Amino acid sequence: MIDNVEIIGLIAGVLTTAAFVPQVYKTWKSKSAESLSLTMFLVFFVGIILWLIYGISINSPAMILANSVTGLLALLLIFFKLRYK
Amino acid sequence: MIDNVEIIGLIAGVLTTAAFVPQVYKTWKSKSAESLSLTMFLVFFVGIILWLIYGISINSPAMILANSVTGLLALLLIFFKLRYK
Repeated sequence: MIDNVEIIGLIAGVLTTAAFVPQVYKTWKSKSAESLSLTMFLVFFVGIILWLIYGISINSPAMILANSVTGLLALLLIFFKLRYK
Repeated sequence: MIDNVEIIGLIAGVLTTAAFVPQVYKTWKSKSAESLSLTMFLVFFVGIILWLIYGISINSPAMILANSVTGLLALLLIFFKLRYK
């Protein structure tokens, strides 16, 4: 199941997911989510869930893993936005 | 080539790509990119390029389309960041 293509996908997933971590950390640390757009993160979250369904449908381990983690991070940001507004 | 799974992927791509448009517009309009992290966008851009290579490798039209557009938007934000700093 893990071939060269999946390794490219896994590295891709680590990079695009990692790009969200500083935002989550900053928001949690500052307890401020004023500059985050709830609409944007809701749209993004629904998109990630659809990518996850797509990844499951085409049987892509990299997409399933990456979109699960990114989806959780997006959900966390939505939670912070609702809590710290 | 366009079946139900690809339609889910295309909707996913539209949503996750659309989430970037307001950021590009805001940065272009305000001519300010101070709050954007160059490192984060470079990491994200490399990740998107790898997702594009992955999409080409597994022959996924939705991933090729979505990651091409998102890659261009990320590149635009990197350009703005370098220009407006």
